[in-house]
Amino acid sequence: MTAIAIDPALVETMIMEIGAIGAHSGTGVWRTVYSPEWVAANDLYARWAQEAGLGVSRDAVGNVWGRLEGSDGGKSIVSGSHVDTQCPGGRYDGTLGALSALIALKALRAQFGQPKRTLEAVSLCEEEGSRFPTANFWGSRAITGAIQQGDADNTRDFEGMTIADAMREVGLDPARIPTAQREDIESFVELHIEQGPILEHADLPVAIVSAITGLRHYRVKLSGEQNHAGAFPMDLRQDPVAGFLEIGSGVINTAHRLGRPAVTTIGRVDVNPNGAAVVPCEVHFTIDVRHPDPEKGQELYRLHEQLMQEVAARRGLEIEWDIGIEKAPCLSDPELVSIFRRAAGEQEVPTLTMASGAGHDTQQMARIARTVMIFVRSEKGRSHTPEEFSTIPDIVAGIQVLAAGLHELAY
Amino acid sequence: MTAIAIDPALVETMIMEIGAIGAHSGTGVWRTVYSPEWVAANDLYARWAQEAGLGVSRDAVGNVWGRLEGSDGGKSIVSGSHVDTQCPGGRYDGTLGALSALIALKALRAQFGQPKRTLEAVSLCEEEGSRFPTANFWGSRAITGAIQQGDADNTRDFEGMTIADAMREVGLDPARIPTAQREDIESFVELHIEQGPILEHADLPVAIVSAITGLRHYRVKLSGEQNHAGAFPMDLRQDPVAGFLEIGSGVINTAHRLGRPAVTTIGRVDVNPNGAAVVPCEVHFTIDVRHPDPEKGQELYRLHEQLMQEVAARRGLEIEWDIGIEKAPCLSDPELVSIFRRAAGEQEVPTLTMASGAGHDTQQMARIARTVMIFVRSEKGRSHTPEEFSTIPDIVAGIQVLAAGLHELAY
Repeated sequence: MTAIAIDPALVETMIMEIGAIGAHSGTGVWRTVYSPEWVAANDLYARWAQEAGLGVSRDAVGNVWGRLEGSDGGKSIVSGSHVDTQCPGGRYDGTLGALSALIALKALRAQFGQPKRTLEAVSLCEEEGSRFPTANFWGSRAITGAIQQGDADNTRDFEGMTIADAMREVGLDPARIPTAQREDIESFVELHIEQGPILEHADLPVAIVSAITGLRHYRVKLSGEQNHAGAFPMDLRQDPVAGFLEIGSGVINTAHRLGRPAVTTIGRVDVNPNGAAVVPCEVHFTIDVRHPDPEKGQELYRLHEQLMQEVAARRGLEIEWDIGIEKAPCLSDPELVSIFRRAAGEQEVPTLTMASGAGHDTQQMARIARTVMIFVRSEKGRSHTPEEFSTIPDIVAGIQVLAAGLHELAY
Repeated sequence: MTAIAIDPALVETMIMEIGAIGAHSGTGVWRTVYSPEWVAANDLYARWAQEAGLGVSRDAVGNVWGRLEGSDGGKSIVSGSHVDTQCPGGRYDGTLGALSALIALKALRAQFGQPKRTLEAVSLCEEEGSRFPTANFWGSRAITGAIQQGDADNTRDFEGMTIADAMREVGLDPARIPTAQREDIESFVELHIEQGPILEHADLPVAIVSAITGLRHYRVKLSGEQNHAGAFPMDLRQDPVAGFLEIGSGVINTAHRLGRPAVTTIGRVDVNPNGAAVVPCEVHFTIDVRHPDPEKGQELYRLHEQLMQEVAARRGLEIEWDIGIEKAPCLSDPELVSIFRRAAGEQEVPTLTMASGAGHDTQQMARIARTVMIFVRSEKGRSHTPEEFSTIPDIVAGIQVLAAGLHELAY
């Protein structure tokens, strides 16, 4: 097929213009759901969608939709991402995917006219959970019908306001949330920055995402015997820190030796009583474990649990854990992966195929549609920071792949 | 020599009576320096010293002295320990040594009459630093002349009161602190609970202490690169927690394999930002390292530092440390060790000879006198807790050894 023309100047202008709404810390953006900045960004998104010749609508939670009607009718092929940010985040995480969908639809319409299948671009709300910490994926969950009655009244922001009241403040009626549900989406494609360094290290601009990782957060408590750091010999101690050090080293080494894409992280450690001259009585720590392959993920969990049990038993320590978060891997639709890889080849954009180690709205959309994602290279793998950055040529390449794949699906 | 008769009932009565002053949490004692409880305990100590036929005096910081004048004059042979406690501590840590000195002198006088050399019992103040955190060894430092001008006005308790004002509240004049200095102490012997489990594991009641450990507190900062726990592959991370886990395991194993009495403890860990799904940017931790042998201690420090440098360099982490506390080992006087070991043998008290892993007033007294310590078995090695406990038979055995050694020195 012919190359799809994406205007780099337009891309840059749109990124900078929407990034100015909630601008923070130089290159950062602070734009939480249902804030004035979020309203303004969505208004701009709706205006751009209209200017691109799309039919604009907003649903009950505030997702903004731009629709390019297909001549054959049927279910929609949708692309988009979220416009809310971390506090502060950067200009790219989320927003780039919402913009890319608009830009792709505008380019397809200009170059190829009306599609057979209906195409939609969407700006989703509250993916990050940066205002309402338990409300992440709010926008995509509304679309899939996953928000339960009462959720809006039970979900509070850091100031204590319910998300229901926050919706009312921007003119949305929480009673209407069920109307946001869609049953007519056939495919969902999300373009997003990688948020990791894999493309940068591979010197490639774009990746096709084969799966979103499964993950488990262990919250572990290891208890021993508090003692005097001087008077108690090493060989008689039941030191939970010594056990933690062995377990922590072990699980990190296990994931490292399993190789990509296995990751295991000890992000949080709390020692009690945390005094320099005291052998502690207990250590609380977390283990974040991720693998996109369901079987390999289970094997990683099993290896980590086995090591925890073995070390605790050998050292005479008590160990307890619970699982704070558990998510099964979300596999991309194999046919969509093939289509977008082929589309990238036709656009002469070199890609690799990789898993996502972070979560995305796509995981939610996978309940009602087949899905795939496109990653654009992130400088130094940065995200959730004002310093996140992707170059315009890389972004343009990503949008070309997105548009070419949508073309194959819809025309 | 003949067995020295120590009355177990008297020992128990005295422990319980002085332990009732500041009684806390059942078997605990909360008795900080210059508090009403401390005043009452010292008044009782002074009364008991007088009843034992000793000449009683109090010095400028409030140490209470009981003196049994020797017929030959000359420098004194002193025994004692501190009566201040942790918040709360137990009945034994410190107080037992002050009481034992009194009981030993009373028994020696009753059984053998006036000594040739002058014997003194002393109740020392503020060893723990439990009220004035920077004032530990206050009583023994006054005796050795180690308190500097201005210290009393610059040393504050947790409420902000200066130790000078606290002294005035109990009728002591801080300007007179220099008069507490003694230059006429020839030997200092301190009986103390072991605070560790070595005697219990060896099934012995008493130990003669050959040295007080040297120690160093490292405060370490290890810095890496903060990243997303999912999107950043293991092989590209500069994870300071992974480095900390390796260093911590390594230093603990090094001390463990060196064997007793080497000890290394990681007591304090602070991770930044301490979130479950974030590869942290930095970890602060302490390493408490102790060895009573000056050369072996230096070797342990060298091994730990070498490991820290090696791990940090290999993992691309930045490492910085400073040394919060450094104390050289305090070796007991070899002749005193021999005398007290022999005295124990003559009293048919089985002993072992060991190092102290904790600090004691004896370290201070070693600046002006030759020193030795006697340890009494601690149940489960407990100390600094209401649960600390030593049996009356063990305590009596310890006092017999103390009295027999003092007899050899003074009669």
